[in-house]
Amino acid sequence: MYSGVQFSLYPMSGDFVGVITNALGALDPHRERLKIETDDVSTLLVGPPETLFPAMRDIFVAAASSGVHCVLSATVSRGCPGGEDQSICDTEETVGAVADLKDRIASATKKVADAPRTGQPVNGQFALYVLGSDTHMPEVYGCIELLENAGILEKPKHFVTKVEGDAGAVFEGLSEVFLRFGPSEGHVTLDVTISANSPSKTA
Amino acid sequence: MYSGVQFSLYPMSGDFVGVITNALGALDPHRERLKIETDDVSTLLVGPPETLFPAMRDIFVAAASSGVHCVLSATVSRGCPGGEDQSICDTEETVGAVADLKDRIASATKKVADAPRTGQPVNGQFALYVLGSDTHMPEVYGCIELLENAGILEKPKHFVTKVEGDAGAVFEGLSEVFLRFGPSEGHVTLDVTISANSPSKTA
Repeated sequence: MYSGVQFSLYPMSGDFVGVITNALGALDPHRERLKIETDDVSTLLVGPPETLFPAMRDIFVAAASSGVHCVLSATVSRGCPGGEDQSICDTEETVGAVADLKDRIASATKKVADAPRTGQPVNGQFALYVLGSDTHMPEVYGCIELLENAGILEKPKHFVTKVEGDAGAVFEGLSEVFLRFGPSEGHVTLDVTISANSPSKTA
Repeated sequence: MYSGVQFSLYPMSGDFVGVITNALGALDPHRERLKIETDDVSTLLVGPPETLFPAMRDIFVAAASSGVHCVLSATVSRGCPGGEDQSICDTEETVGAVADLKDRIASATKKVADAPRTGQPVNGQFALYVLGSDTHMPEVYGCIELLENAGILEKPKHFVTKVEGDAGAVFEGLSEVFLRFGPSEGHVTLDVTISANSPSKTA
């Protein structure tokens, strides 16, 4: 399955280049399993679907540890029909809607509960898109139930769902959304925004 | 038709609050036709589909005129089945795939050519998602043809399509993508990133 992400990191600082450069080392443990390419707008990661959110979590937490208000924005995709199947994406994970929604929510909730905490609080929002399938909205409502059970739901709002919590739980929760919802072989995308150190945090 | 956007503006400056505050006045001419709500992660605009990109263009160009590296990130949506139909979204525009792809591309290309220029160069990328329909990929390839004809295509890359040009042309091009592709009554979303004043602009 072809899977990957285009993500960008936005430190709200005149030294944004320094904040990003200092955080790059956090990607090192992930480089072996990922193809990584950066241009002037975003960084591409292509690799097994379960590796994408841990890699983004680590670079984001590293950047946020600067204390600067940082935002990560990401377009995550699996099963995109435009892309060739690449062996670097091979996974032993069982991906997609292979069990009842109820069972998927229960096992994903446990994954979030078991995820290591980072000490970095974050909040953010996401939209899940299940392309070429009539299961889009039931899967979206299933995700919201998962996030509520996992204690990282802030609230649904127009077009997106807000999340909050420790970065370890939030990135694991979004990873589970990406891995467990939508058809196994279908085209599924996530539009993700994660924020830390915001002066206007209202939650 | 229920339509709107969640967007965020990221000025890469310690004075990010000041840059955003100074740009807010650019939304004033649009306020009458839009419902606007801001929280700690993004700003919601709900209104007629043709008003969304002009409003985002004006606030983005105002922020970028500071000279600071600024990024706008947006989740744009029409026909979202989760939302109630709101009269503020009423439009006299004909929206969606109401004509042959070829004819839609031709009229959209003309709209981009006729759009007022702003003097602000931008680049960025977007993904178009046509939900619950098997026309997703033909519509995406149609968009790429439009952007190429309109002279604002940089290149397709993994998961997204890169655009560049004057902000007037780029925002009009993305507005046309949003308005002319995908079914009239369907659920269509765009995931958009627009950047200005980047020190690492490589194009």
